[in-house]
Amino acid sequence: RSTDVSVHLTPDGRADALAAHPRRPGARCFASAHVRRVDFPAAVRLIRDSDPAAGPVAYAQQQDDCLRGEYAAVAGDVDAHVPWASEALGCLPEAVNLWIGNACSVTSFHKDHYDNIYVVLSGEKHFLLLPPTEHHRLHVRDYPAAGYVPVEEGEEVPELKLEMEEPERVVPWSSVDPYPASPEEMAAQVSACPLYFKGPRPIRCTVRAGEMLYLPSMWFHHVSQSPGPNELTIAVNYWYDMQFDIKYAYFNFLRSLEIKDSPLENNDDAFEGELEEKKD
Amino acid sequence: RSTDVSVHLTPDGRADALAAHPRRPGARCFASAHVRRVDFPAAVRLIRDSDPAAGPVAYAQQQDDCLRGEYAAVAGDVDAHVPWASEALGCLPEAVNLWIGNACSVTSFHKDHYDNIYVVLSGEKHFLLLPPTEHHRLHVRDYPAAGYVPVEEGEEVPELKLEMEEPERVVPWSSVDPYPASPEEMAAQVSACPLYFKGPRPIRCTVRAGEMLYLPSMWFHHVSQSPGPNELTIAVNYWYDMQFDIKYAYFNFLRSLEIKDSPLENNDDAFEGELEEKKD
Repeated sequence: RSTDVSVHLTPDGRADALAAHPRRPGARCFASAHVRRVDFPAAVRLIRDSDPAAGPVAYAQQQDDCLRGEYAAVAGDVDAHVPWASEALGCLPEAVNLWIGNACSVTSFHKDHYDNIYVVLSGEKHFLLLPPTEHHRLHVRDYPAAGYVPVEEGEEVPELKLEMEEPERVVPWSSVDPYPASPEEMAAQVSACPLYFKGPRPIRCTVRAGEMLYLPSMWFHHVSQSPGPNELTIAVNYWYDMQFDIKYAYFNFLRSLEIKDSPLENNDDAFEGELEEKKD
Repeated sequence: RSTDVSVHLTPDGRADALAAHPRRPGARCFASAHVRRVDFPAAVRLIRDSDPAAGPVAYAQQQDDCLRGEYAAVAGDVDAHVPWASEALGCLPEAVNLWIGNACSVTSFHKDHYDNIYVVLSGEKHFLLLPPTEHHRLHVRDYPAAGYVPVEEGEEVPELKLEMEEPERVVPWSSVDPYPASPEEMAAQVSACPLYFKGPRPIRCTVRAGEMLYLPSMWFHHVSQSPGPNELTIAVNYWYDMQFDIKYAYFNFLRSLEIKDSPLENNDDAFEGELEEKKD
């Protein structure tokens, strides 16, 4: 009998991301996936059948040391840790996670309190990367938390609706969507997040099957993916506890500051003018 | 024949420190020592005879990799580097310095762009330490540079006077003197540098003969010293090139900020009030 594994279901492949607020027109909330435990063949079926136009998008991304938990049966198929990273960081991984998804799933800009060794096994992962010093360019704002829930109980492939958490919980999250779906949404994004869209572009990096990315702790990252020949994107990542050292003190100080005097925040025209001058 | 070595002469043992401006009453300047090259026995005589009441204070502290330069003849008496530090920092020392002085010499608050392994061979060094995140508490201001010069040429033990550098050069330096000489000077210091004197005390640490201090790069340090049985304080320090990494970017950002909203800067009474409230 196969052990059950957790799949994260959303209507659009955006788990832990901003979504339209279900009750306040024009407002946004922070939406978490509906998590369902199914046997592994059913999980792979849900992921392969993911189609935002027809039904939910499934992503196996439990992120709770799941390779050594739900997936313990296959944990021995990969290295238990990354020797050079364990030596450099002075410890063993605190969590090892397995990720199985496809191109329908996207992970929005965020940071982790871990040094991250990200290994792709099948397909490709596409990262956008910004260092922690660029915090202000992520336009982090407070959003009320919400979660996807099935419209009806008991369906194997559920239709989902978004419900606000009760009591209300607030999540600070980046307002930036680097790949808006339409020119109108792009215009709205550029207007709402000028420090991101008008500043230097983030580092872009594609990690292919067999490759490994060292993603330092506190770096902001946005992740999209392409499937391999098996129709799946499969990755394993090793989370090493970060050092809460002087960099963390500096980061929290930087985060505590309001960026008030930036021409980007205050006066869009002034910035456009500067750009044009430089073209002359 | 003995190789000549450099001794740094000041009237008061304060080389690279703030001093009364020679022409503007009430103002201060940044004063550098008069450096004289003498043979080693003469250098030791000058250091042992140092007496701010009678003549100049001498301190052999050339800080230009001098153990491997002027003092190459004795460099083999100590380790060429510190193996655990070289391994941890991934390089060999860029400079190894010898320091010979006595209790008359004090080094004012400053930071170095080096990771520093400080080894005491004779006597004791007394450090006050503040991390780079405390930059604002050092009350760094711009001071015009000056240098001590002999009143008359050719004297073996010269009388010194302070001359402003021409053309004028400005040095940003900490306004803090943690050990003012009189109650009046202490009152003036507390008033001029409230963030230092009314904040948490710096780390204090005494390094004795045979002991070693790892002083991380960019940490502010103030150093005084006690002589050993040979009437001298002797130390060797290993300067390792620092990494100009994200910490350096954070530090420069922090340093670029004016601390405007602090009750300590703006309203001394408000702060005293807070302190008293907490005592209730």
